[in-house]
Amino acid sequence: MISKTAIGHLVDKLSAANVASEKEDLLVLGYDSTPGVHHLPEVAVYPTTTAGVLDAMEIAQHEGLPIVPRGSGTGLSGGSVPVKGGMVLCLNRMNRILEIDEENLTATAEAGVVTLDLFNATAAKGLFYPPDPGSQKISTLGGNVMEDAGGLRGLKYGVTRDYVMALKCVLPDGSILTTGGKSVKDVAGYAFKDLLVGSEGTLGIITEVTVKLIPPPQDKRTFLAYFNDIRTAGEAVSKIIAAKIIPSTMEIMDKATINCVEDYVKIGLPRQMAALLLIEVDGHPAMVEEESQGVKKILEQVKAAEVHVAKSVEEANSLAAARRTALSALARVSPTTLLEDATVPRSRLAETFAEIERLTAKYGLKVGTFGHAGDGNLHPTVLCDERDSDEMHRAHAFYDDLYDQVLAWGGTVSGEHGIGLAKKEYLARQIGPGGVKVMKRIKDAFDPKGLLNPGKIFADDDPCTQAHVEEGFRVSH
Amino acid sequence: MISKTAIGHLVDKLSAANVASEKEDLLVLGYDSTPGVHHLPEVAVYPTTTAGVLDAMEIAQHEGLPIVPRGSGTGLSGGSVPVKGGMVLCLNRMNRILEIDEENLTATAEAGVVTLDLFNATAAKGLFYPPDPGSQKISTLGGNVMEDAGGLRGLKYGVTRDYVMALKCVLPDGSILTTGGKSVKDVAGYAFKDLLVGSEGTLGIITEVTVKLIPPPQDKRTFLAYFNDIRTAGEAVSKIIAAKIIPSTMEIMDKATINCVEDYVKIGLPRQMAALLLIEVDGHPAMVEEESQGVKKILEQVKAAEVHVAKSVEEANSLAAARRTALSALARVSPTTLLEDATVPRSRLAETFAEIERLTAKYGLKVGTFGHAGDGNLHPTVLCDERDSDEMHRAHAFYDDLYDQVLAWGGTVSGEHGIGLAKKEYLARQIGPGGVKVMKRIKDAFDPKGLLNPGKIFADDDPCTQAHVEEGFRVSH
Repeated sequence: MISKTAIGHLVDKLSAANVASEKEDLLVLGYDSTPGVHHLPEVAVYPTTTAGVLDAMEIAQHEGLPIVPRGSGTGLSGGSVPVKGGMVLCLNRMNRILEIDEENLTATAEAGVVTLDLFNATAAKGLFYPPDPGSQKISTLGGNVMEDAGGLRGLKYGVTRDYVMALKCVLPDGSILTTGGKSVKDVAGYAFKDLLVGSEGTLGIITEVTVKLIPPPQDKRTFLAYFNDIRTAGEAVSKIIAAKIIPSTMEIMDKATINCVEDYVKIGLPRQMAALLLIEVDGHPAMVEEESQGVKKILEQVKAAEVHVAKSVEEANSLAAARRTALSALARVSPTTLLEDATVPRSRLAETFAEIERLTAKYGLKVGTFGHAGDGNLHPTVLCDERDSDEMHRAHAFYDDLYDQVLAWGGTVSGEHGIGLAKKEYLARQIGPGGVKVMKRIKDAFDPKGLLNPGKIFADDDPCTQAHVEEGFRVSH
Repeated sequence: MISKTAIGHLVDKLSAANVASEKEDLLVLGYDSTPGVHHLPEVAVYPTTTAGVLDAMEIAQHEGLPIVPRGSGTGLSGGSVPVKGGMVLCLNRMNRILEIDEENLTATAEAGVVTLDLFNATAAKGLFYPPDPGSQKISTLGGNVMEDAGGLRGLKYGVTRDYVMALKCVLPDGSILTTGGKSVKDVAGYAFKDLLVGSEGTLGIITEVTVKLIPPPQDKRTFLAYFNDIRTAGEAVSKIIAAKIIPSTMEIMDKATINCVEDYVKIGLPRQMAALLLIEVDGHPAMVEEESQGVKKILEQVKAAEVHVAKSVEEANSLAAARRTALSALARVSPTTLLEDATVPRSRLAETFAEIERLTAKYGLKVGTFGHAGDGNLHPTVLCDERDSDEMHRAHAFYDDLYDQVLAWGGTVSGEHGIGLAKKEYLARQIGPGGVKVMKRIKDAFDPKGLLNPGKIFADDDPCTQAHVEEGFRVSH
């Protein structure tokens, strides 16, 4: 339990307006966007500077208080839920864009800036920040970095990691680490920056980020293709890549998702179709024209049921917006939505759809699948009710079986949502107890007291938490 | 001193043909391509499988023997010189290309494959592996990964790090870690793969690498521009990027380098010019045409003395090949060649050239500068004689001053050559004692006995090697 004295110290350092300790203020900080996990923190702080983050860190360390960094709470693996109580450190009052450097093609912003605000500010200068997680209207840059957020454009443009050039970070030992810079090449020492990206708030608290910008594509064309069989859609994706066409987007929705989205946004999606692919090619107009021809030809070859080309930027944007509603649309139809993040090598896409169909039937569940088909990154979503324990049991068995197969195909248990609370049990299955052990050693190197975002990533019974592990280990998948 | 018994064990495990312990066999393994550093190992092993690497690692650990991994020894910071003796573990008999996966656009090869062999094998399948370090004809993929090697195409296509998808790695504790895979997105756990890239053989020994391939550019145009003032060349580079043109290559040579290269390859370079830029734009033919016009216009604007367009692929290749000889050409003219790897944000390029000129005059040295101007990555090379202690003193003072300025501009002490032995003293200047301390903790997490490539990266008097460091730290640059 946090002491009155400690709260007094926080107020002294950060001002009363930036410290909350009343239950009604804390309630909303006990959740993120992950179903089924919530826990009340004891105190919340809203620092407005890196120095303020350092002050909060020092007081928490002194009190032995868990510290859980938080952006907008849009995470989908429970990463910002304060499961061990303690202090939630909200970064969303640190939301200034500090610089857009048109000579070096970089932008520097505080961690709490909203992703879309950064995108828009760079676009206003004729530049392009590609990472676009589904939550971009709400999510923060710092959260994107901590989770290594993906998005709809990952196929061609990569994910958040590919754009991070420098980080300012407060470490648990009360130091400020600046790593990276505006030089496009830097091999001086270990890659802290790359280690911190995707570390889910367990190694340090990011307060400032410098990202790489690129020239925007000059042209874009958007296709919508419908299929009578979802495996055919998977086949189309593989064939497009194998033809050396790299679209900026290849998003998929299955029949259940099409119907939920149509119920929600009413844009005339055909409810009888087994799947749709939203495909965008972009770049130089001449390349867009050629790649469009290539995409059309492949869609004909695999016998897509229908192929539409968006007639205007507005129509293209409304299609992408409809895709972005998929999770919300699915979440409306059942009390509980279990969203997963299975990712496979692209060549396994058609087989993965078949496996999802097989397991859906085997366990008698309602499953909607959507995701970034071009990345092999799927979100099979079980629509269920957490009050029905038998159904929940079947839902978990579904994911258990699915992940076994995904790992056997060389896939991963998380393409973009992170491990957090939701996938702790799956992580060791992927990287082995040896992999977890090395991770735990790295965690200890940064956070020996284990106060930073405790209870995340590492399962409580991970072998790494045992005092002595003697033998070497072998990890493979 | 290694025991006869230990050599016997190595021979038992790896066969006599793959173990060398005679001085005449070891002599060539005491060097890499870095001037002024050499040290004889006690034994050398040439494993042909990951299991063989593991065997060698286990015997070395048992004997308390330093283990120094080595590819082709083309490193430029002394990373593979066995300064503490022990075992050199040569990976160049593990040189098989295991798979080129045309569906997933990946290639998997053993660590000892020669970079150019991998490039050619993927090109034969119509695919493109962009990283092209200057040493690509000799260097190995494993060495490229360990140093995060750059190259001439880094500007548009990135460096080795950007293409590594998966690694198989033998860790000092006798485990085999497989990290990453063919999934294009993977956020399961800490980014081991990204931490291992650029770790200079100090955390683990890479035995297998899976890299990303991309479709090759359809067209390319090569320009050669000469300048009466090197700062104008720097200005041209900045203006091209600011015009949102990203050439695949923008390489620079100063007057000294032009003359040494011309002496060496005799292709008619104009000896009176202050600098040349080799610029390549590539991609879709229509984009190449537009970008070529843009490049020409900027070269006219800044008043380049002459601009040539390569008339054929052969001419373009011979220009690139001439650039690749720069280091060898400079190395011929003096007994000692001190090559550095200063990298600055691109916008500082012209100022950096001015600073190099100023310091060259101040210290009365002969300096040739070449490098990847588009990346802000320069190789100012002092041509000197290590028997002249006064000259060597001035050479080191030159670099000292230069790096102070480079760091003040937000640059880095190494863009692509690594820290190794050559830059240990500079690293702490860049990342601070606190940064070094966190690095040391990571090193300990992987290699608690400190047997893997000892004496590298960390300076002997780094504060991290002191038993107790009490305070928090601040790092900034």
